[in-house]
Amino acid sequence: MKVEFHSDREFDLIAIGRACIDLNSVEYNCPMEETMTFKKYVGGSPANIAIGTSKLGLKSGFIGKLADDQHGRFIEQYLRRVGVDTSHMVVDQEGHKTGLAFTEIKSPEECSILMYRDEVADLYLDPSEVSEDYIEKAKVLLVSGTALAKSPSREAVLKSIRLAKKNDVKVIFELDYRGYTWVSTQEASVYYSLVAEQSDVVVGTRDEFDILENLKDGNNEATVNHLFKHSPQLIVIKHGVEGSYAYTKSGETFRGHAYLTKVLKTFGAGDSYASAFLYALITGKDIETALKYGSASAAIVVSKHSSSEAMPTLDEIEQFISERTKDIGVTTRLM
Amino acid sequence: MKVEFHSDREFDLIAIGRACIDLNSVEYNCPMEETMTFKKYVGGSPANIAIGTSKLGLKSGFIGKLADDQHGRFIEQYLRRVGVDTSHMVVDQEGHKTGLAFTEIKSPEECSILMYRDEVADLYLDPSEVSEDYIEKAKVLLVSGTALAKSPSREAVLKSIRLAKKNDVKVIFELDYRGYTWVSTQEASVYYSLVAEQSDVVVGTRDEFDILENLKDGNNEATVNHLFKHSPQLIVIKHGVEGSYAYTKSGETFRGHAYLTKVLKTFGAGDSYASAFLYALITGKDIETALKYGSASAAIVVSKHSSSEAMPTLDEIEQFISERTKDIGVTTRLM
Amino acid sequence: MKVEFHSDREFDLIAIGRACIDLNSVEYNCPMEETMTFKKYVGGSPANIAIGTSKLGLKSGFIGKLADDQHGRFIEQYLRRVGVDTSHMVVDQEGHKTGLAFTEIKSPEECSILMYRDEVADLYLDPSEVSEDYIEKAKVLLVSGTALAKSPSREAVLKSIRLAKKNDVKVIFELDYRGYTWVSTQEASVYYSLVAEQSDVVVGTRDEFDILENLKDGNNEATVNHLFKHSPQLIVIKHGVEGSYAYTKSGETFRGHAYLTKVLKTFGAGDSYASAFLYALITGKDIETALKYGSASAAIVVSKHSSSEAMPTLDEIEQFISERTKDIGVTTRLM
Amino acid sequence: MKVEFHSDREFDLIAIGRACIDLNSVEYNCPMEETMTFKKYVGGSPANIAIGTSKLGLKSGFIGKLADDQHGRFIEQYLRRVGVDTSHMVVDQEGHKTGLAFTEIKSPEECSILMYRDEVADLYLDPSEVSEDYIEKAKVLLVSGTALAKSPSREAVLKSIRLAKKNDVKVIFELDYRGYTWVSTQEASVYYSLVAEQSDVVVGTRDEFDILENLKDGNNEATVNHLFKHSPQLIVIKHGVEGSYAYTKSGETFRGHAYLTKVLKTFGAGDSYASAFLYALITGKDIETALKYGSASAAIVVSKHSSSEAMPTLDEIEQFISERTKDIGVTTRLM
Repeated sequence: MKVEFHSDREFDLIAIGRACIDLNSVEYNCPMEETMTFKKYVGGSPANIAIGTSKLGLKSGFIGKLADDQHGRFIEQYLRRVGVDTSHMVVDQEGHKTGLAFTEIKSPEECSILMYRDEVADLYLDPSEVSEDYIEKAKVLLVSGTALAKSPSREAVLKSIRLAKKNDVKVIFELDYRGYTWVSTQEASVYYSLVAEQSDVVVGTRDEFDILENLKDGNNEATVNHLFKHSPQLIVIKHGVEGSYAYTKSGETFRGHAYLTKVLKTFGAGDSYASAFLYALITGKDIETALKYGSASAAIVVSKHSSSEAMPTLDEIEQFISERTKDIGVTTRLM
Repeated sequence: MKVEFHSDREFDLIAIGRACIDLNSVEYNCPMEETMTFKKYVGGSPANIAIGTSKLGLKSGFIGKLADDQHGRFIEQYLRRVGVDTSHMVVDQEGHKTGLAFTEIKSPEECSILMYRDEVADLYLDPSEVSEDYIEKAKVLLVSGTALAKSPSREAVLKSIRLAKKNDVKVIFELDYRGYTWVSTQEASVYYSLVAEQSDVVVGTRDEFDILENLKDGNNEATVNHLFKHSPQLIVIKHGVEGSYAYTKSGETFRGHAYLTKVLKTFGAGDSYASAFLYALITGKDIETALKYGSASAAIVVSKHSSSEAMPTLDEIEQFISERTKDIGVTTRLM
Repeated sequence: MKVEFHSDREFDLIAIGRACIDLNSVEYNCPMEETMTFKKYVGGSPANIAIGTSKLGLKSGFIGKLADDQHGRFIEQYLRRVGVDTSHMVVDQEGHKTGLAFTEIKSPEECSILMYRDEVADLYLDPSEVSEDYIEKAKVLLVSGTALAKSPSREAVLKSIRLAKKNDVKVIFELDYRGYTWVSTQEASVYYSLVAEQSDVVVGTRDEFDILENLKDGNNEATVNHLFKHSPQLIVIKHGVEGSYAYTKSGETFRGHAYLTKVLKTFGAGDSYASAFLYALITGKDIETALKYGSASAAIVVSKHSSSEAMPTLDEIEQFISERTKDIGVTTRLM
Repeated sequence: MKVEFHSDREFDLIAIGRACIDLNSVEYNCPMEETMTFKKYVGGSPANIAIGTSKLGLKSGFIGKLADDQHGRFIEQYLRRVGVDTSHMVVDQEGHKTGLAFTEIKSPEECSILMYRDEVADLYLDPSEVSEDYIEKAKVLLVSGTALAKSPSREAVLKSIRLAKKNDVKVIFELDYRGYTWVSTQEASVYYSLVAEQSDVVVGTRDEFDILENLKDGNNEATVNHLFKHSPQLIVIKHGVEGSYAYTKSGETFRGHAYLTKVLKTFGAGDSYASAFLYALITGKDIETALKYGSASAAIVVSKHSSSEAMPTLDEIEQFISERTKDIGVTTRLM
């Protein structure tokens, strides 16, 4: 099975949601209390995916709200520089701030993030700032779950999905669950279910699907059986180092294996995975290839310092795969 | 066309949303500044419909949150007394208050309401307080639009709709739009669209459908064409004294005429209409009869002082209709 | 000792704070759940005192914020009708509501109040709406503690006190503590101390002075010793049916006895006491007489249905006292 | 005139208010959009003064609330390392964050700060967390104006001032006005007046005194005439490069001149001034010397990268002064 996209659209992918600042400790392998210097990067899952797909050659756009300050302007300039269309990013007029993520790398296994997400500009995107004229120009609308966490961003996203479906734009839902922005897991479950049932492709970790289903230790079969009663055609469930599974509505299952690599930190793995996976899907590659691209892209990014700047080019991904394929096959067709 | 309901369910109808207090001026035909005495009644659209259908002989239940005070206890006692099941009403533990509506009747044409809706208990119904075990016992889940206006009541309602659809409970959406509880009409439009598209029956005034569509002076044909692409099977659009139209997915249109009556005030017309209309639908009557029942019930209530206590019995409705039918036919089959 | 007031001021007393609506059960001696009718009166401690002193013949004014609705207009009209100057009452432009108090009279000993105080207009009085030109025209600024419970009303009152002291207007502080509007008793204690120390006269119940001192079971001697180190010249501490004590900075203590009376309800006792007590002080009567007036006024009001409309005239007070004095002496000079 | 301090107290100075993180651009002389690296320092006016006085040899303590995260722990560790007593700093339990200040140095004349002050831990210091046992151990309580901007920090500070006055601890008020944390200048004026009138020493810029007085272009004479009617004994009004004026209640006026220096940035000038000025006062030096120390300390800090780490030692200040005194006399006794 292949997901079919409209062929004659100006944009391959338009992402909606947050674009923030990562402040990555320059010093590694120590607690943040001892880190004295931080390096600034663009961050935030949908921004990273817009950047990642753009670097891979897709035409990407972004719908989001930026703080009216130096950090907001830096983000817009950076996105524009790497080729992302920023014509539908709006600048907040009410003094909201750019979200921040200070990253701590105590060891490759012990990474943590200190988030600043109170009253951030991205969550103030208003439904009136989402334009049908823009969305109908895209093959894919990429929705990030975190943008559903608060009003009015929540309503802006719900509106964008309606407009996408109305205009035959495929909706891809990256669960991207961040607990601290939600009032409760019950609340998150309500919106995750609602949006997943309306999406064409759903991508997330097993833990994130548990949030969606409001349960613990869910199993993939039950998850996909339920969702395939609704809109989804393709569901990707990631299990960390054990790799990922892709399920199609037509009944196929694929397993993608993670590449062994020297891990510097785990940040950015999901976004780089999604970027390359979506790149492959949208350019018409088969699901096995898409899984391979995703894994390769993630393996490259976790070995580098940033999430956004480290996003690989197509050449890097293909070279990485060709070097590794000698060793192990990374996808398995299960059924 | 008839809407089909599950036959073997314990409850005919379970309503979800607000149950409040109406404080109706005892003195009529004067501005409220000069009114010195107020009479207390249960109010709120879904509570009125639960009461109205119960008085007509249906088995009704209610899901909602009550203030932990004298007004909250009065509401629960009143509902129970008229036969509404209150086993799934929960009592607020955080000091929220009962919503109030002071009514002013300057003249039959000039009625207004002074609302107290800040921090009211009904809008704090939590999704965790909505039980699948209860909803699956009903033929119909009646959803009131006002309950979508704020979190967490909004999420409680969205969850109840998912559970209803999962358990083959028909969802009836009474638009019941009250501007003051919403942040913006854009926000209202997002949730009204979302819920209407998932409902089986949608009932509202033409103005309320305009909110749903986020436009002005919409026309019924466009409205029903759009909604019939989704779940709805039956749509009722009310045009005040010009009567109402019922549209079926199978292509029929019916017009219901309003009965002429001595109007005391306009409050309660919508809820009494909905009660009798739904009673007729659920008991298997045809749509023409349902429209007639709705109009008769509304005509009876607008001639009396309260909205809830004035809800008619079946005998009253049938006697009213038989007296009037000599004069005019109240429904017309258009196509 | 007598408190001296400026003789040549246009207003005897200007009160600042809330003016609300009391909704008193028409039915007595039953729980509110069974009360079906409510009668409307102006309420709120400083409004009652402005009304009470005006009925006794003083020239009173009021600084406060009213809802832009029927209840707000009723209050302004009522105050004006009983002679209170309303030229410095401002009308809220942001949709805030009038505070409400539903009163329940289960028995003369069991009275309770159901308050609506969320987002009420009176607590939105802004410091910019307090005018020095007005305050300097008064002999007395009457401050009610409840107006300190929330910003910006809190800052409006703090500003009014500064302006009063600057212009030699005596500050009289009626503690009027209502727990539900404060975040914590710690917070209340901070502002009560601050304002009491800056006031000339402080009036409250023993329980209210405990809040001020942030302790339990405080004793009057410690209370007055502390406060007399600051601005106060006269402190009145009320002990319910055991009567009240008045302490002067110069070292005198007076005890006022409560009159026995047929109590209908306890609401309004404090405000009627304050009205008559202040009337006596401002018109140059001695403290013993002031205590007697206060007790008589309270005894009259607790035997009637309302708090504001029941405020007695001077004749009523004097007649009440002359009838009772045959029996008992109501004040005692202790030292 | 000299300000007299209690001689036998364990702490010379206890500061109350915020302790935050400064993130100073490593790259100078460019807009922040182009800055890629930030260096972390402790910041916040009262923390800087506690650090500055501690480095000068005073025994300093701090009352404040810290975020329960890496930034909070860094601040506590840093303060402790430079000798500040942190036994009365409390750790927030409700997820509030550490305040941040990103500094931008476009040129020595064009410095700006990008603040993160939404929901920061320091503004959640509660009055119940302020201990009389601690405050009574100090010669001086240093109050920073910004801590008055929001509840409950506002009430914690008001309480600390009451406790200080009760225990004969001198209150020094550093106006430290930051517009973005206040609802309005009216609100700021109310609390600035209230606290200034209760303080023994008030230090601020001319602009800050204008906020206190709620006017524009105020003049020093009117300012000090008003404040000397209340508690203040010493008032310092700073006029930037034109130097500063110190006024005593006994009628003296001193002018302190600013030292010419190579300015890197203007941040930290006020705090380093206050640290050295207070050091001199508390150690019994005369006001002329205190002004000189303040100016020298400020001149040293503005030529360095940070505000806190750059705080000079006594030797550095004295050496700086001795080098410069050859050129110009820096204080003038005016009357």
